[in-house]
Amino acid sequence: MNYSIISYIIGWILNFEALFMLLPCIVAMIYKESSGWAFVLAMLLCLLIGIPLTQRKPKNKIFYTKEGFVTVALSWIVLSIMGALPFIFSGSIPNVIDAVFETVSGFTTTGASILPDVESLPYCLLFWRSFTHWIGGMGVLVFLLSLLPLTGGGYHMNLMKAESPGPSVSKLVPKVQSTAKILYGIYLALTQLEILFLLCGGMPVFDALTTAFGTAGTGGFGIKNDSIASYSTYIQVVVTVFMILFGVNFSAYFLIISGKLRQALHIEEVRWYLAIIAISIITITFNVYHIYGSIGASLQQVSFQVASIITTTGFATTDFNTWPEMSRTILVILMFVGACAGSTGGGVKVSRFVILMKTIQKELRQFLHPRSIKKIKMDEKLVEHEVVRSTNVFMIAYVLVFAFSALLISFDNHDLITNFTSVAATLNNIGPGLELVGPTQNFSIFSGGAKLILIFDMLAGRLELFPILLLFTRDTWKKF
Amino acid sequence: MNYSIISYIIGWILNFEALFMLLPCIVAMIYKESSGWAFVLAMLLCLLIGIPLTQRKPKNKIFYTKEGFVTVALSWIVLSIMGALPFIFSGSIPNVIDAVFETVSGFTTTGASILPDVESLPYCLLFWRSFTHWIGGMGVLVFLLSLLPLTGGGYHMNLMKAESPGPSVSKLVPKVQSTAKILYGIYLALTQLEILFLLCGGMPVFDALTTAFGTAGTGGFGIKNDSIASYSTYIQVVVTVFMILFGVNFSAYFLIISGKLRQALHIEEVRWYLAIIAISIITITFNVYHIYGSIGASLQQVSFQVASIITTTGFATTDFNTWPEMSRTILVILMFVGACAGSTGGGVKVSRFVILMKTIQKELRQFLHPRSIKKIKMDEKLVEHEVVRSTNVFMIAYVLVFAFSALLISFDNHDLITNFTSVAATLNNIGPGLELVGPTQNFSIFSGGAKLILIFDMLAGRLELFPILLLFTRDTWKKF
Repeated sequence: MNYSIISYIIGWILNFEALFMLLPCIVAMIYKESSGWAFVLAMLLCLLIGIPLTQRKPKNKIFYTKEGFVTVALSWIVLSIMGALPFIFSGSIPNVIDAVFETVSGFTTTGASILPDVESLPYCLLFWRSFTHWIGGMGVLVFLLSLLPLTGGGYHMNLMKAESPGPSVSKLVPKVQSTAKILYGIYLALTQLEILFLLCGGMPVFDALTTAFGTAGTGGFGIKNDSIASYSTYIQVVVTVFMILFGVNFSAYFLIISGKLRQALHIEEVRWYLAIIAISIITITFNVYHIYGSIGASLQQVSFQVASIITTTGFATTDFNTWPEMSRTILVILMFVGACAGSTGGGVKVSRFVILMKTIQKELRQFLHPRSIKKIKMDEKLVEHEVVRSTNVFMIAYVLVFAFSALLISFDNHDLITNFTSVAATLNNIGPGLELVGPTQNFSIFSGGAKLILIFDMLAGRLELFPILLLFTRDTWKKF
Repeated sequence: MNYSIISYIIGWILNFEALFMLLPCIVAMIYKESSGWAFVLAMLLCLLIGIPLTQRKPKNKIFYTKEGFVTVALSWIVLSIMGALPFIFSGSIPNVIDAVFETVSGFTTTGASILPDVESLPYCLLFWRSFTHWIGGMGVLVFLLSLLPLTGGGYHMNLMKAESPGPSVSKLVPKVQSTAKILYGIYLALTQLEILFLLCGGMPVFDALTTAFGTAGTGGFGIKNDSIASYSTYIQVVVTVFMILFGVNFSAYFLIISGKLRQALHIEEVRWYLAIIAISIITITFNVYHIYGSIGASLQQVSFQVASIITTTGFATTDFNTWPEMSRTILVILMFVGACAGSTGGGVKVSRFVILMKTIQKELRQFLHPRSIKKIKMDEKLVEHEVVRSTNVFMIAYVLVFAFSALLISFDNHDLITNFTSVAATLNNIGPGLELVGPTQNFSIFSGGAKLILIFDMLAGRLELFPILLLFTRDTWKKF
């Protein structure tokens, strides 16, 4: 293991985190909040560790998949621990595990909170909570590394492999750094567009910024206790549309700005994603029609909730925990489906399910025609064997991590649906689940031990299991 | 598709089913029950279709995997439909779907019932219900085919592949027919041993026979409304021990009778199976200790329930639906684990989980040492790539079938736990689930449509998905 390069990169992550904290500092100044000092203190601590680590430029340039995975996993953990300091220093969340839970939930764009009353938080902390979503949404390492003078050694590719969601890493342009810059450009532009639309609806600037951050990262932290419910219908519709947009594979946008609209509309994953959303909305609307009275109101409420769950954002405008069982079941299934690969959304990802369905189809065909060799295709291109294999292994690791987590948090003795959906909501980076962790509830009911498991799940879900699992493998730390 | 051989085999299956029905006829005569006529009528119908089908010996000897899978799937469906006739003719279960549900539940060794009051059934029908468990437990086709004068064409291997549970088919001796006879020998001997032990505990002969059939097939149909709860502690302990024994990979017994005791004790799957049972019993005992007062009573109750669930038998001596959530969670996880491959138990099978865990381990190692080629080993032998691959594909098909079934039965609008555990209980061939399908409840709450889904799940679970899925693939019925 090349420790020198790992500590060097983590040093830079800390320096950048100090930089990120400047924004909430400014917010604290604007609103004249004393909690601003908590950020100054946290920034100093970040720099105190970060600067010495970045002083020694690593000579050993070896950077394999292993280093990529470990760097990404450790960076996210360090990011979360240091990001939790302002909550602790300001006394808003004095408990360390709670503060880390809230920050991990932010960076991983989960949006599960342990706070029963978010409205009592100072503005600077509310801003930080939402801003962590925006930072975590697109992945932070690849972008930061693009700005650093590190060349050769395959840094970017190996980091991107570990940090990007989806079954395979698709570079938009040959250079990873340029790909990262394009992705961030699209991300920034879409976020600005949403802010604009929200401001047009008469939303206060602070609310527009934080809501857009939560939507863009598909995070879900709100600044109101009732999430988005108290805002106007116009704003709810804007958020619905943007949630769906941020759940689309970003390469579709790249194709559109490259003038290849037709090709963008033919991406198989995006078509499935939109089809699943449409079918779910229609089915649930029929099921809950009696609750909201009119077709229009039902459609609007259902669209918001469906978009929020499938994109793993987790905003809510109504308590879907009280919906009929069929609707609840569909929502639970959507929790697992998740958004598109290459979007800011979590979950298993639509493309993985498409590959899995095609794997089953292929298996059945193999029984019928044992001698024919059928390959799996997507977007009329062959899916590499390695991608199919790693998708299968991902799915299995996913099921096992899920089962173990559910077993371990059952020691808290809450009901099965609470346990099951809180693991689903954290491992898929959604936020709310059902019953005791429903949209009007929060995660404060869990013991410290259960919260640690859920923290693990949020990180494992955001980094797609293997980087985090690798940290807990003895072999990783062995010398050879 | 070689239709002539398929119809020939199904003909023989019908003839044998008529033969099987002789036993409940005898029971009806002993107890002087008029329902005996229902069996006579069903037998005549079986022979009426069966004999003509077996008249024309097929000339075309082609019998590939495809034919094997389709034959097995169709045979089990035909077996179940004809087996349901006595319930319908006698008027005990007049509804066709209900009668088929009950029979499929019998043959697939699920043990899920739609009857709220089994004690009101005549003895001959009670006997038939339990006897279907015994027939279905070890798989019926391979055995029957061993008795027929069919040679060449790979009949037996292709049927065994489709009908035997587990990730790979292990022949104990080179000839498939001899393997089948040895397996049935062990099955018969163990069943007789259990009957003997039960009779020693003072159990009436009829009860001993039916209980032994239910245990041997890991079925779970009882002849009392409270399952096994009203029998003595001695009998409950005997049933516990035999449930665990019937969940063991039968090759272990073959090794023991071949004098290779040491080798038998080293089978990795069996060790994991026993370890999981032991850990579950200890953990749950601590969790439910307060309910039963003494360690002894808790241990005995917990052992019975754990053995019943992991072996997918489904007998009950206490209402585990009322246990604390942690214990319920463990039981739900055990529902999926299932028994050993090559046993009469259902579920995913312990060996599959061992292979899956090793796949994840291998994947993690691959990240660390990309150039090393690690193979998965079990019992110190290499697991073939094809077995690993098909285990992965099985698991994925399993998850998808599970999700679709849960979604479809949610249209009935029962609670999530009921829906989730009724799919778990049928797809894993267990019997009882939790809440509305808990051990003191039954499956009569479901609509006809939901029952059809659950019938599909029971068959898919027993035949390990692919034979049944193949029936619903358009390509299977295409001419080439």
